[in-house]
Amino acid sequence: MNQEFQVWMKNIQQTCEQALSAYLPPVSQTPAHLHEAMRYTALDGGKRVRPLLVFAAGALFNAPQSLLERAACAVEMIHVYSLVHDDMPCMDDDDMRRGKPTVHVKYDEATALLVGDALQSQAFLTLAQADAAPATVVGMIRTLAEASGSAGMCGGQAIDLASVGQQLNRAQLEQMHSLKTGALLRASVMLGAQAGKELSVADISALNTYSAATGLAFQVVDDILDATADSATLGKTAGKDAADNKPTYVSLLGLDASRQLAAELCQQAHTALQAYGDQARQLHDIADLIIQRQA
Amino acid sequence: MNQEFQVWMKNIQQTCEQALSAYLPPVSQTPAHLHEAMRYTALDGGKRVRPLLVFAAGALFNAPQSLLERAACAVEMIHVYSLVHDDMPCMDDDDMRRGKPTVHVKYDEATALLVGDALQSQAFLTLAQADAAPATVVGMIRTLAEASGSAGMCGGQAIDLASVGQQLNRAQLEQMHSLKTGALLRASVMLGAQAGKELSVADISALNTYSAATGLAFQVVDDILDATADSATLGKTAGKDAADNKPTYVSLLGLDASRQLAAELCQQAHTALQAYGDQARQLHDIADLIIQRQA
Repeated sequence: MNQEFQVWMKNIQQTCEQALSAYLPPVSQTPAHLHEAMRYTALDGGKRVRPLLVFAAGALFNAPQSLLERAACAVEMIHVYSLVHDDMPCMDDDDMRRGKPTVHVKYDEATALLVGDALQSQAFLTLAQADAAPATVVGMIRTLAEASGSAGMCGGQAIDLASVGQQLNRAQLEQMHSLKTGALLRASVMLGAQAGKELSVADISALNTYSAATGLAFQVVDDILDATADSATLGKTAGKDAADNKPTYVSLLGLDASRQLAAELCQQAHTALQAYGDQARQLHDIADLIIQRQA
Repeated sequence: MNQEFQVWMKNIQQTCEQALSAYLPPVSQTPAHLHEAMRYTALDGGKRVRPLLVFAAGALFNAPQSLLERAACAVEMIHVYSLVHDDMPCMDDDDMRRGKPTVHVKYDEATALLVGDALQSQAFLTLAQADAAPATVVGMIRTLAEASGSAGMCGGQAIDLASVGQQLNRAQLEQMHSLKTGALLRASVMLGAQAGKELSVADISALNTYSAATGLAFQVVDDILDATADSATLGKTAGKDAADNKPTYVSLLGLDASRQLAAELCQQAHTALQAYGDQARQLHDIADLIIQRQA
């Protein structure tokens, strides 16, 4: 990975951490317990892939920094809430996340439920409070709401739940992931781009191609890591999907073909960015990062 | 209750049912199971108090019907999602709601979790897709997000959870309810009014007074009904709060004083509307409805 990108990435991660801290309610505000739990799970952890995508896409059209910060925080709050709910006993029943106890373990289940619910509201509030053209803000809220709901992330989770123990074929697996994780990754790219300008049909098409390829690569690599890495490296329980008899790319295609698929998808993502030249260098490098990551 | 109001109310309830059906994803759309469960819990039930408030406040400033329909559906989706999550075993563990099995009983806990999550997204999407002035839409989304999150409904639920078995005084009980149920009732009034025009300081003040009094009356009556009505009339488990050792107005003030308080609050609500004359007749009658209701 090139050094300029490394510096950029660290910078965005720091910016995002500070902005999240500012846009989450302080512990000094009532109810302190809920706010503490929201901050416990949202701050100081995570690779911030979605915020990176927001800022990288924002760079395409020189989007204003403050609006990108709000968009990055909003999409990360949605992501974090989904992890909190996904880790609960009635879903994946996971004890560890990002190397620390999950919210229902550290606090309790009722708190985990409310933390997730409140983070979702906070995400939309963070966008709705932006000091930007109202038409832009409404468009961004629409993007985030579509990606979060039953036609996006929640819908993907519902299909995932229904698929445990089932023999999904590759098309079904792709559809599930395109909703479960793909929708929010795509929304991250779109939010960054929308923050910069009203998108043309050509922009939407190119960014959709980039997002679809990158999102799928992300999932294929997730499956590879789940099958090959240890829990300490991942910061969550490894081998969980296989143990739960969930379909994965590795179980469907094998390790070698999965690695090859990830590389091909990365290439597709790069190709989709050609029209943007150097303005797209961070989006280009994020695709590399996604397939090279170790956790 | 006067007949004109009765007719108006039935009309709004029907309108709201149809609009909810239109703004919720159809069962024909993937994932069918999730959409079926969302519609099971959101349609064909409930007094639709929040939609009534939206339309009644909309009548103050002749707000456009289509925007009121979206606002009514959005606030009702938030309300319904909160009931679904509130009924789950890790929260109130209730089996019945509006006379039918709760979502986690009819389906399962994971589905109940996702139904609530997806309904919240759908609420914001429903507002964000409105064909109205973007500045109006952003303002309405802000109102709904503030009322839903940790400074509103979710915050009230967190305080409620922490208060089980505690001896709350009247001020603490009021603060809890002003967040838990009051915030969304206030938002309903504000959404309807905002749909009609940009609110003046005087409008906001009058509507805040109306909402605070009506919201508190609603809760006092809820406590009276929980202590006096039977489960069949309520459509949910009666006597639950007392059995759970939760503080209520009845346990704090006794039945007679609680009834008197409800009547005084209704009077306060009426007084707050004086400046609006006949335009406020539905808001006026809703305050009456709230203290006269039997379920």
